[in-house]
Amino acid sequence: MLFENIPLACGSGGRLTSELIKEIFLKNFSNEHLRDLEDSAVLNLDSRNIAFTTDSYVVNPLFFPGGNIGKIAVCGTVNDLSVKGAVPLFISCGFIIEEGFPLETLKKIVLSMKKAAEDAKVKIVTGDTKVVERGKADKLFINTSGVGVFGKNSALNQKNIKPGDYIIVNGDLASHGIAVLNARNNLGIKGDIKSDCAPLNELIHKCVLPYNPSSVRDATRGGLGMILNEAALSCGYCIEIDEDSLPVSTPVKSACDMLGIDPIYAANEGKAVIFISEKSAKNALNSMRKHKYGKKSAIIGKVSSKRGGKVWIKTSIGAERMITMPEGEQLPRIC
Amino acid sequence: MLFENIPLACGSGGRLTSELIKEIFLKNFSNEHLRDLEDSAVLNLDSRNIAFTTDSYVVNPLFFPGGNIGKIAVCGTVNDLSVKGAVPLFISCGFIIEEGFPLETLKKIVLSMKKAAEDAKVKIVTGDTKVVERGKADKLFINTSGVGVFGKNSALNQKNIKPGDYIIVNGDLASHGIAVLNARNNLGIKGDIKSDCAPLNELIHKCVLPYNPSSVRDATRGGLGMILNEAALSCGYCIEIDEDSLPVSTPVKSACDMLGIDPIYAANEGKAVIFISEKSAKNALNSMRKHKYGKKSAIIGKVSSKRGGKVWIKTSIGAERMITMPEGEQLPRIC
Repeated sequence: MLFENIPLACGSGGRLTSELIKEIFLKNFSNEHLRDLEDSAVLNLDSRNIAFTTDSYVVNPLFFPGGNIGKIAVCGTVNDLSVKGAVPLFISCGFIIEEGFPLETLKKIVLSMKKAAEDAKVKIVTGDTKVVERGKADKLFINTSGVGVFGKNSALNQKNIKPGDYIIVNGDLASHGIAVLNARNNLGIKGDIKSDCAPLNELIHKCVLPYNPSSVRDATRGGLGMILNEAALSCGYCIEIDEDSLPVSTPVKSACDMLGIDPIYAANEGKAVIFISEKSAKNALNSMRKHKYGKKSAIIGKVSSKRGGKVWIKTSIGAERMITMPEGEQLPRIC
Repeated sequence: MLFENIPLACGSGGRLTSELIKEIFLKNFSNEHLRDLEDSAVLNLDSRNIAFTTDSYVVNPLFFPGGNIGKIAVCGTVNDLSVKGAVPLFISCGFIIEEGFPLETLKKIVLSMKKAAEDAKVKIVTGDTKVVERGKADKLFINTSGVGVFGKNSALNQKNIKPGDYIIVNGDLASHGIAVLNARNNLGIKGDIKSDCAPLNELIHKCVLPYNPSSVRDATRGGLGMILNEAALSCGYCIEIDEDSLPVSTPVKSACDMLGIDPIYAANEGKAVIFISEKSAKNALNSMRKHKYGKKSAIIGKVSSKRGGKVWIKTSIGAERMITMPEGEQLPRIC
C-alpha cells in the first residue's frame, strides 16, 4: 500500500477504496462469495439462493434536496439487492448516534425510512442502537443490511457481460452528488437540483429482468465511471460510451462545469447501469421509459471485444479518451 | 419521551435504550418480526426460516485484554444468531473509519475477525468501507449483520419460558465490562481480568439445544440484569435468582466492589442465559461443563408463577430485592 494511515480518499469508492478492500479485507476474508466484489453476495441455503448485502451511510449533511440519510440507507440497500437480480425482502438497521442528537430529527429520519421501506415493499425486521459521546461521531451514521431472494431468474454477475451488449442507464446522472455538495457547502446553485435517491427494485424487476440482461449495477460512490471500470475489469472486454448520449440535466451540467466536477464520477442513488444484448435493449428501454424511475432512460454505449478491460468515451468533438477509475477524493461522505 | 436530545444513556442497553426503541423505531417499523425485540429476527423464505441480526460496535478502547473490536463484532453477531437457535453461516461487515487511522491497526483488527470467523465456522461474505474526516468518528466503528439457518429445532423465543424452568449461565459474569473499563481508564486493577468475548454457537448447538431449552439469550449490554428483565416482561412470569450462585471471578468481584459496579448489570460478550425445564437442566449443565466455553456453567435461579413479570434476587444474607432494568449509563461504549 502507498499509505500508512488511511486517507479520506479511501472512502471515495474509487481506486484507493478498491486497493484497501483488496489488500486488507479480501486477503483475510477471502471466499467465493466476497471475491466477486459485487453489490450483494449470493449465498446458498440448501436448494435456494439468497442475496445478502450491507452498507454504512455517513452522508453529510443528513438532509438534502430529494432525501436524507434514512431514505438513502433504505434505498441503497434495496438497490444493491435488486441489481443482483434479487427481490429485496428484509432490511436491518444499525444506528450510531452522537450524544445530544435531537430526538425530533431522529424521528423525521426514521419516518423517511418507513416511507422508503413501504415504497420498496421491504420490511425493517431487526435493529441496533448505539450512542457515543459528543464529538465522537458526526451526528448520525446508519448501517443497513438486506436479504433478498431470487425468483425465476438466477443471480446476475458482471462476468457475464458480452461483446455487443448495449449499456443503458435509467435517467439523468450525477444529481445525487451535486445535490449533496450544494446542500453541504451552501453553494447557492440555482435550478432544481435534487438527489435521485429512489428504490429501483420495481423498475429492475418489471422492466429489465424480463429482457434477460447480462448484468445490472448500481452507480453510487465513484459514479458511472467507477462502475464501468469495475465491469470492464471483471468481464475483460472494452466498454465504449458516447459523451453526447449521457443523460445529465441542464442545472446539474452547469453546476458540474462551474465546480470542475466530471458528472461521470459524481454519485447517483437511483441509477442502474444495465448491460443487455442488442436485440433486447430496445424492448427494455421502451419498458423502462414507462416507469416513474426510468422516464429518461438512454442507451449510452456498448461493449466491444476490440480492446480488453478498459473504458473509453467518445467526446462531443469526436475524440476518444480513456475513463480510468476515479483517483482521489472528489466528494467525501456522499452517502 | 423524557428528553429532547438523545442522552448517552440511550446507548447503555438499559431502560432508556428500550424506551427509545419502542417510541421511535417500533412505532414506525412495526411488524411481526421486530416486535419480539429478541437477538435475531426469524424470517420465512418459502418453506424455511432464516435468522437475521445486526449490531454496530463502538467499543472504546479498540483493544482490551481478551479481545478487540473486530473479535467482538464477529462473536457478537454469531451469538445473536446462536441464542435464537440458528446455525450462523454468513456475516457482513461495514467499516466506518476515521481519516488517518493506522493501516497496521486495521490489519490487526481484520486478522482478529478472520480468526473469530474461523473459530465460529462462519464466512464473511459482503462488506462496505466508509472513511470520515478526522474528528468526525472515534477511530473505528464496525457493523456486522448475520444470517443463520435452523436445523431440526425451530426458533427459540423467550415467550416460551415456563414456571419451573431453571436458569443456567455458562460461566463467570461481568468480565467483559470490567476488562474494557480497566483498559479504558488505566485503573491498574491487578489480577487476570480478561473479556469473555467468544463465539458460543458450538456450545449452544452441542450442549444446550439437544436438551430443548425454553429460551436462550445473550447477556451483553446491560448484563444479566437487563436480559432477565426482558425475559420476565416477555413471558409474564417471575424470575428468582440466588446471589450466592452467580459465578463471578474473584478479581472481577474485587474490581466491582472497588468501583461500585453491580456485576449483574456489567456487560458480557460470551455469556448465554439458558431457560430450561428442571428435568433437562442437569443434563445440559453436565454437557456444558465439558465445553471450553462452559466450564464454569452454573444454575443461578428459576422461573416462578408466584409474582408476575419481575426479577428478584435472594441476597447472601437471605433478604430479597428486586432487580430492575438498569437506569442510566453505567459503562458507555462497552461493545
